[in-house]
Amino acid sequence: MPSIFAGNDQHEEITFFHDKKINLKVIVGIHDTTLGPALGGTRFWHYAHEYAALQDVLRLSRGMTYKSALAGLNLGGGKAVIIGDARKIKNKTLLHHYGLILNKMHGRYITSEDVNITIDDIAEVSQKSSHVVGLPLAKGGSGDPSSLTAYGTYLGMKAAAKGVYGIESLSKKKIGVEGVGKVGAYLLSLLHKENATVFITDTSSTRLKHIQKNYPFVQVIPREDFYTYDMDIYAPCALGATLNTETIPLLKCKIIAGAANNQLADEALHGQQLFDRDIVYAPDILINAGGVMNVYEELYGPYNKNKAQQRVETIFEKCFNILQQSSQTKTPPHIIAKKMALQRLHEAKPC
Amino acid sequence: MPSIFAGNDQHEEITFFHDKKINLKVIVGIHDTTLGPALGGTRFWHYAHEYAALQDVLRLSRGMTYKSALAGLNLGGGKAVIIGDARKIKNKTLLHHYGLILNKMHGRYITSEDVNITIDDIAEVSQKSSHVVGLPLAKGGSGDPSSLTAYGTYLGMKAAAKGVYGIESLSKKKIGVEGVGKVGAYLLSLLHKENATVFITDTSSTRLKHIQKNYPFVQVIPREDFYTYDMDIYAPCALGATLNTETIPLLKCKIIAGAANNQLADEALHGQQLFDRDIVYAPDILINAGGVMNVYEELYGPYNKNKAQQRVETIFEKCFNILQQSSQTKTPPHIIAKKMALQRLHEAKPC
Repeated sequence: MPSIFAGNDQHEEITFFHDKKINLKVIVGIHDTTLGPALGGTRFWHYAHEYAALQDVLRLSRGMTYKSALAGLNLGGGKAVIIGDARKIKNKTLLHHYGLILNKMHGRYITSEDVNITIDDIAEVSQKSSHVVGLPLAKGGSGDPSSLTAYGTYLGMKAAAKGVYGIESLSKKKIGVEGVGKVGAYLLSLLHKENATVFITDTSSTRLKHIQKNYPFVQVIPREDFYTYDMDIYAPCALGATLNTETIPLLKCKIIAGAANNQLADEALHGQQLFDRDIVYAPDILINAGGVMNVYEELYGPYNKNKAQQRVETIFEKCFNILQQSSQTKTPPHIIAKKMALQRLHEAKPC
Repeated sequence: MPSIFAGNDQHEEITFFHDKKINLKVIVGIHDTTLGPALGGTRFWHYAHEYAALQDVLRLSRGMTYKSALAGLNLGGGKAVIIGDARKIKNKTLLHHYGLILNKMHGRYITSEDVNITIDDIAEVSQKSSHVVGLPLAKGGSGDPSSLTAYGTYLGMKAAAKGVYGIESLSKKKIGVEGVGKVGAYLLSLLHKENATVFITDTSSTRLKHIQKNYPFVQVIPREDFYTYDMDIYAPCALGATLNTETIPLLKCKIIAGAANNQLADEALHGQQLFDRDIVYAPDILINAGGVMNVYEELYGPYNKNKAQQRVETIFEKCFNILQQSSQTKTPPHIIAKKMALQRLHEAKPC
């Protein structure tokens, strides 16, 4: 099992909850509440072992602290996982019991959607707990955050293009999108409008078929050819850690800008490897913050989509600045992003 | 790290708290709250690793569930550890911050004293949290529970003597007491009044000197000779797991009855080994329940020492009955004790 207390960037609170009545196993991670209550989505996943689930909670909740700090939000970082196969065990009763678990933290942790938890599931959880955000529009919430997450990613990509090519337009750029779930699909639309040339890959043939039907302009690349494919921009929009020792040497792109969380398998090592290869990396914690920016407007609402969108639009400038600082100071951009987040946390902390 | 979710007897809630301001690391285990809030002491210990601390929390909080169930109390089982060297880091600030941590559980866990946490420390914690019990008498609490823990242990020992020798008197019995902390010392007085022949051992030479001065009737045995020493009754009153594969074959006693928690290193294996060797084992979770019975009277007070003592006196009859059932059904007594506790939990659970 990964260590919880060791290291320099520990969590304030990690709880293993087990609702024995319905055999519901949940881990909640609260990394840091310096800036506000810990907010982050709930992921429903059939982990092979609780250690793997814990590992996910640890790194994802930590990521949320820096993401919200960098986004200028008054939120701490948290994340939860429900352990199990969502297709088999997710139902109303389970979601209600999950709400009761959330209540045990009395608002120190606030949840939203994540992998295998939809905004309708969040609405179900909200029957039992008020410590949720990201409800459907019809229920007075901020709705599906995917479009704004995609929009922020797209703006980050454009900022990186401006840095690398001197112009933010993505027209004619060859862009490979890995993972075409909801966020990836929205991204395709935005890229298509800009007249980019888009390739995709995905582990799910169902999703690929859906995309080919609805987005006939994209070209599907087999997964095994994807990383070596000739492209200008690589957009990781699937699960994390796709930037690793195996993939980085294969990449032909000049820019990486995607919506996935924790894209760098090892932050220090792989962030440096990309930098050494002159590949410009738009930090994930910055450019995929559209979703949390969106629910933030709901949390301290009433929700206003224009306000949320305006907030997301700050990503372009922030990303461009970070990449400029990166090239001026010869420092990988993810390090600059992290420093900016830490700076904000540090200033908020009473001495 | 030990598994938290695996196995048949999981915990409802395990939390790793880290108060970063003062680097306070705490693990709280709530095993079961079927019968009431989870109550159990806080242990302050310099664990070599957080896994060892977690292991302690898991087994001690589980033990508290069965102890309170068997004692007939409306309490669940919990336990907490503060990780660190109490001699070096325990102070008022730390105890106050610990109180703030307790508040995060809103009474699902209630603490009392344990190793390296005194009733005065509990009074200090109570400055910040009401989720404590076992305050000093001068502060309206139930005071040091050690004398009643010793009294219950003594009664359990007498019940075992009645079962084995047909008479509950301990006069002339050779009794070895391992560990002469507060509970062990009280036990010595009770045994001396009965005219027993008492041997002791302890890892602390300071404690041994103190005992030799105040209890001149006891004989000190070197630790290496203790388990092979000729005695009728062995009373484990130190840390747990002294009944193990190494010690059991050495024992010459007919009865084991002591105050330590988790005396059987491996419950199933070593409980059976004792049974096969015809050594009568008075289950620890039954006979060391005097302490929790005492704080229970405070929790649902006003505290009345006579009532607490009357409750402790039920241990004699319960222990005698369990040992009788054990010999009638050829079942190790710890299994019968556990079954009785489970039966109570089962009956309390709504179907």
